[in-house]
Amino acid sequence: MKDDNTVDMIKLMRQLFPICRSITGNGVRETFKILREVVPLQVIEVPTGTQAFDWTVPKEWNIKDAYIKNSKGEKIVDFKKSNLHVVSYSTPVNEKISLSELKQKLCTYPELPDAIPYMTSYYKENWGFCISHRQYEQLKEDTYEVFIDSSLEDGHLTYGEYIIPGKTKDEVLVTCYICHPSMCNDSLSGVVVVAKLAHTLMKKFSDKPRYTYRFLFVPETIGAITWLSKNKENVQHISHGIVVTCIGDKQQLTYKRSRRGNAAIDKIMEKVLKDENVPHAVVDFFPNGSDERQFCSPGFNLPVGSLMRTAYGKYLEYHSSADDFSIISEKSLEGAVDVLLKTVEAIEINRIYVNCNPYCEPNLGKRNLYPTMGAGKKKSTQLEAIKWTLNFSDGQHDVVDIAIRSGLSIFDIAAVIPLLVDAGLLRVA
Amino acid sequence: MKDDNTVDMIKLMRQLFPICRSITGNGVRETFKILREVVPLQVIEVPTGTQAFDWTVPKEWNIKDAYIKNSKGEKIVDFKKSNLHVVSYSTPVNEKISLSELKQKLCTYPELPDAIPYMTSYYKENWGFCISHRQYEQLKEDTYEVFIDSSLEDGHLTYGEYIIPGKTKDEVLVTCYICHPSMCNDSLSGVVVVAKLAHTLMKKFSDKPRYTYRFLFVPETIGAITWLSKNKENVQHISHGIVVTCIGDKQQLTYKRSRRGNAAIDKIMEKVLKDENVPHAVVDFFPNGSDERQFCSPGFNLPVGSLMRTAYGKYLEYHSSADDFSIISEKSLEGAVDVLLKTVEAIEINRIYVNCNPYCEPNLGKRNLYPTMGAGKKKSTQLEAIKWTLNFSDGQHDVVDIAIRSGLSIFDIAAVIPLLVDAGLLRVA
Amino acid sequence: MKDDNTVDMIKLMRQLFPICRSITGNGVRETFKILREVVPLQVIEVPTGTQAFDWTVPKEWNIKDAYIKNSKGEKIVDFKKSNLHVVSYSTPVNEKISLSELKQKLCTYPELPDAIPYMTSYYKENWGFCISHRQYEQLKEDTYEVFIDSSLEDGHLTYGEYIIPGKTKDEVLVTCYICHPSMCNDSLSGVVVVAKLAHTLMKKFSDKPRYTYRFLFVPETIGAITWLSKNKENVQHISHGIVVTCIGDKQQLTYKRSRRGNAAIDKIMEKVLKDENVPHAVVDFFPNGSDERQFCSPGFNLPVGSLMRTAYGKYLEYHSSADDFSIISEKSLEGAVDVLLKTVEAIEINRIYVNCNPYCEPNLGKRNLYPTMGAGKKKSTQLEAIKWTLNFSDGQHDVVDIAIRSGLSIFDIAAVIPLLVDAGLLRVA
Repeated sequence: MKDDNTVDMIKLMRQLFPICRSITGNGVRETFKILREVVPLQVIEVPTGTQAFDWTVPKEWNIKDAYIKNSKGEKIVDFKKSNLHVVSYSTPVNEKISLSELKQKLCTYPELPDAIPYMTSYYKENWGFCISHRQYEQLKEDTYEVFIDSSLEDGHLTYGEYIIPGKTKDEVLVTCYICHPSMCNDSLSGVVVVAKLAHTLMKKFSDKPRYTYRFLFVPETIGAITWLSKNKENVQHISHGIVVTCIGDKQQLTYKRSRRGNAAIDKIMEKVLKDENVPHAVVDFFPNGSDERQFCSPGFNLPVGSLMRTAYGKYLEYHSSADDFSIISEKSLEGAVDVLLKTVEAIEINRIYVNCNPYCEPNLGKRNLYPTMGAGKKKSTQLEAIKWTLNFSDGQHDVVDIAIRSGLSIFDIAAVIPLLVDAGLLRVA
Repeated sequence: MKDDNTVDMIKLMRQLFPICRSITGNGVRETFKILREVVPLQVIEVPTGTQAFDWTVPKEWNIKDAYIKNSKGEKIVDFKKSNLHVVSYSTPVNEKISLSELKQKLCTYPELPDAIPYMTSYYKENWGFCISHRQYEQLKEDTYEVFIDSSLEDGHLTYGEYIIPGKTKDEVLVTCYICHPSMCNDSLSGVVVVAKLAHTLMKKFSDKPRYTYRFLFVPETIGAITWLSKNKENVQHISHGIVVTCIGDKQQLTYKRSRRGNAAIDKIMEKVLKDENVPHAVVDFFPNGSDERQFCSPGFNLPVGSLMRTAYGKYLEYHSSADDFSIISEKSLEGAVDVLLKTVEAIEINRIYVNCNPYCEPNLGKRNLYPTMGAGKKKSTQLEAIKWTLNFSDGQHDVVDIAIRSGLSIFDIAAVIPLLVDAGLLRVA
Repeated sequence: MKDDNTVDMIKLMRQLFPICRSITGNGVRETFKILREVVPLQVIEVPTGTQAFDWTVPKEWNIKDAYIKNSKGEKIVDFKKSNLHVVSYSTPVNEKISLSELKQKLCTYPELPDAIPYMTSYYKENWGFCISHRQYEQLKEDTYEVFIDSSLEDGHLTYGEYIIPGKTKDEVLVTCYICHPSMCNDSLSGVVVVAKLAHTLMKKFSDKPRYTYRFLFVPETIGAITWLSKNKENVQHISHGIVVTCIGDKQQLTYKRSRRGNAAIDKIMEKVLKDENVPHAVVDFFPNGSDERQFCSPGFNLPVGSLMRTAYGKYLEYHSSADDFSIISEKSLEGAVDVLLKTVEAIEINRIYVNCNPYCEPNLGKRNLYPTMGAGKKKSTQLEAIKWTLNFSDGQHDVVDIAIRSGLSIFDIAAVIPLLVDAGLLRVA
C-alpha cells in the first residue's frame, strides 16, 4: 500500500477498467487487490447460499473465454476484446446454431448503434451475447459457433470494507459498488472517488476523528443487502451516510436526499454544496437508484443520501461500452472528492453549542473579540459569525443550522467557535 | 324507477326546469317524484315549527297563479310564463296600486337588462315581483292590478335521501340543493349530477362498497341545517363529503377545500383532478357558499369540500332567468360525474398498507414481479409503482399519499397492490 | 408638560438636535428635560460601576469645549460648531502636536467627503477628533494645538421611562435610544416618534387600556442591558415589544421580526402594515441592529420586533453629520406614528372569541344582523366579516388570525365583534 502519494484517480481507473467484474468472482478479487494499493481494505468472503433477508447469496460466476465464430471460423465477437460482449452470469455454452437462433441470444442498444450494451442475468440461468446494433444488422444467414467458457458454482460473494476508528461509535458510511465490468462513470467513478476519499482521510486523521468512518466497496444490491444482513445490529450507529455513483461525467453534481428528507446529512451536504459555490441540483429520495434503496428501505430508513453527477439511466452512454474514458474527466472526479472532504469536515465540526452568557449580549470589547483593524471583509464576517453564533446557540441550533440561518458558511461559523469557547462564552451542549 | 338505462342529465333537467320550487312546497315534492325515476330516494317530511339548532322549519309555501295587469286588463307580468316573476315566499295579494307603489314591489337586474332576477323572502313576510330591467324602464303611469294566489301555512319541509349501505358505517356524503326554481346551473346542475352519480353507483356496487354512501337532496341552508339537526349523533361517521353545485357551465372545475384544509377528501379530490388531467382550480374554504357552510360550521367541522365549475355569484347569469340551458353543456355535466366516479373509486381503494418485508428490497425476480417484456411505458410504470409502494408502505402513508409522493396516479399505485398482497409483500395496516 | 397640544415632532427634534448626547452625561439629562414637556417621564439614574449582566455601567462623560488650533491660533476644528467633531467619550487633552501625530487622532468618512463622521470610544480610554475628509486632505504640516475639556468620572447612567398602567400586568414595550448627538434619522427620529406615540396614548386612554404600556428612552446597548438587568423578574410580562429607530427618512417602512419570528407582534405588525396599504418590507431577525439584540438575546428571547425605515448602516448618511434634517420628513415621522397607533389599537382588540352557536350558521336574519340596504360595499364587508368571525371563532383563532385568513382587515373583523357579542353569538374565550 502506497500512502506516500496522492491517488491518481484516472490512473487507478485505467487499471480497474479492463477487469471483468460481476457481483461475484475473481474479477472482484482482482479489483480489491488493486484497490488495496490505495486503501487497506479488509476483504470479506460470504459463501454461496448465505441467507440475507429476502435474498440468497448466489453461486459464484467466473469466465475464461467466449466468442462467436461464423462458419468460416472467424471470431466475429470476442470476449477478450470487450468483456461486455457476454451477458454477465452467462452459463457455459458450446453450440452451433442458426442466425435466427443466435438472434434470440443477442442484445443490442439501437439508440447508440456502435456501442455494446451491458446486460446481466444474475438470478435466472441463461446465456447471451451483447453486440453493437450496427453489427447485429449486418449479420448474415450462417451457422454460428457460440462458445462461453464460464463456471457458475458454489463459491463466495466478495466485498471490501475499510474502517477508520473514531472517538465514538457513531458512524459515517460511504459506499460504492464494484460489480460493473468495463465502464467508467457507472460504478468505477464512484469506486475511485471513495478510494481517494478514504486514502486522504486515512492520512489526514493523525488523531482519531470524532466519528468512525466506514467505506464499503460492495457488489450493488446483493452486496449492500448482504452487508446490512451481517450488520443489522450495528446500523443504529450510522449517523450519516452517502452512496457515491456516476460522479465522473462532466455535468453538475446532484445530491439525492435520504428518504427522511430532513436528516442531518441532507442539511449538511446541501449547505456544503452552496457554501462551496458548486453548481448542483438537489432531488428528493426516490426508490430507484443504487444502494440507497437498501439503506433507505422502510425497515432501516437510515440517514443515507447519494452524491452523483448525471444519475444512472439519465445519460445516453449508461450501461454500454460508450460509458468510457471519453465521458468522464479528472476535474469532475477531483471536484467530487473536494466536496466530500468538505462534507466530512462539516460533519466533524457540527455540534450544538450553548451560549454561556445568554442574557443580553456579552461584552465582546473587554474580551478582545471585536476584530482588530485589518482586511475589512474578513473581519466583518468574523464579527457577524460571532453575533449569529452567540444569538442562536440556544441548545436548539447546531453549527450548520446557524450557518443556514445566517447565510454565512459552515466554516465561517466554525471559525469563531474556538474563540468563543476560549473566551468562556460558549460550551458544547 | 328505470335502472336499465343510463341517466340523460339534460333530459332530466328539462323535466325539472319548469317546476316552481322553493325551500318547501309541492314543487319540491313534484321534483322528488321525477328524481325517484332515477334514484330510489326516501322522501322525508319535517313539520313546520320543528326546531333545528338556531332555526325553525318555516311555514310551507305554495302558489297557484300570479300576475300584474295594467288598467286595460292586459297581463304585463305572468307567473305562468316564468315562475321567477314572483318573489319566492310571497304572501297572497290582490290589489290595485299606482306605478310608484308598484315600483316598491319590483326587483330588477340592471346588469342583465333582459333577465328576470331571482329573489326570495323566506323569513320576512312580504310579497313582490321580479321583472326585466328593460320592462321596468318602460312602465307607464297607470293603475296596476297585482295578484298573487299563494298560501303560507303550516305544512312541511321536504327533503330526499338515498343511502347505499356499505361494509362499514363510515360514510361518504354527497349533497346538492333542490330549492331553486327555473334555473340551470345554480341548483339543477348539482341535482342532476348527484342523481346520475347515485344511479351509477347503485348499479355499479353489486357487492356492498367499503363505505356507506349517502346522497342528500335538500333545500339549501334550512334543509342542510334540518338534516344535521336530525342526524347530529351520526355525523361522526362522515369520513368524506362533497357539496355539488354550479357544475354545468362551460368553465373549468373548482374544488373548494373543506374547512380543515387537509382532510383526506381534499387530498383525494386534488390528486384525482390532477391525475385525470382535468383543468381545474383549488381554493381554500371560505364561509360563504352553499351547504358546506353548515357542514363546516365550527361545531361540526366535517371533512366536506365542494365541487363546482364557476362558483355562485361569480357568473353574470347567476340568480336570474339567464341561468338557462344556453350556459350549460352536457359535456360539463358528464365531466363532473366522471371526476366524482373517479373520486369514489379513489376513496374506496385508499388505505394504509404495510410492507411485510421492510428490511432491504424484497427479491422481486423470484416472485415474478419484474414486469415481463411488453409495452414498455406501461411495464415501467408498474415497476415504478411497485417500488414506491413497497418503500413508502411504512404505516404512515396511504395509497393517495404514495401516489402524490411518487408523481404516479392513484390508480397506478392501486393497480400493483393486489400483486404485492398476493405475493405476501404487503398487508392492510 | 403640555398635554393640550399635539406634538410637533420636527420642532421637538430641532430642540433636541444641538445637544451633545452620549451614553451618559448632562446632554442626556437635558434631553429628558425637553422630553418631559411632552411625556411625564420618570428619569432613573444608575451609578457608575453598577453591574448589568456581563457589563458595568461606565464612568459618566461630560464635555465643555474642544478645538484644534493651527500655529496661527486659528480654530480649524471647533466642538461648538458641531459636537460630532469630538470622538464621544474622549478623555481630556491639551497638547501641541505635529501633523503626523494629529492624523493618528483624526477620523474621516471618505465616502461623504464633506460630512463629519460620528465616532465613539466608550470602553477604551482614548481621545480623537472627527473632521470632513475634504478638510483632512487639505491639512498642512504645522504644529497643532489639540484641546478637549472633558471629564470622565464616577457618576450615573441616565434613562427615562414612562408607564401607562393597564387593566392587566401584561405589557407592551416601546423603546428608543437617546445616546446619539446631533443626528436626525439615527436615534432622534425614534425618540420623537416614541414621544409622540406616548403622548397621544396618554391622552387617548381615558380609561385604563387592556395592556400596560411601557416607553423606554435609554442609551443604546448599555441602557437596554441596564434596564433588563434591573427588570429581569418582570420581563415575563412583556407580551409585545417594538424597538423604534431610523424611522424619519423618506423610504418605505421595514418591520424586522422578533427572534421568535412567529410572535403575536410579528403577526399583528405585518397585518397592520398590509391593512393600512403602507409600502413596507418585512425581514427576519438578525443579531445586528439596535436594542432588539438585547431583548432578543437567547436567554430572554422576548417578543420584540423593530420598526424602521432605512435600517442602520443601510444609508450613506448614517453615523455622520449628513444625517440631518434634509434626509427626514415630517410625513415619514407622522406615518410611523400612525402605524404604531394602529398597531396599539390592534393589540388592544386582539383576543380569541368563541362562537356560542357553533352548530350550523346562526340565523342572522332574526337577529337583524343581515346588513340593511345602504352603501353596498361596506355592508357586504360587514356580512363577510360576520361570517368569517363566526366560522373561525373556534377557540383556535384570534381576531388577527381571522383577519389574515379572510383577507379582511383587522378592523373589519373587530367592527363586527360587538354586534355578535350583543347578539349572544360570541363570547371571549
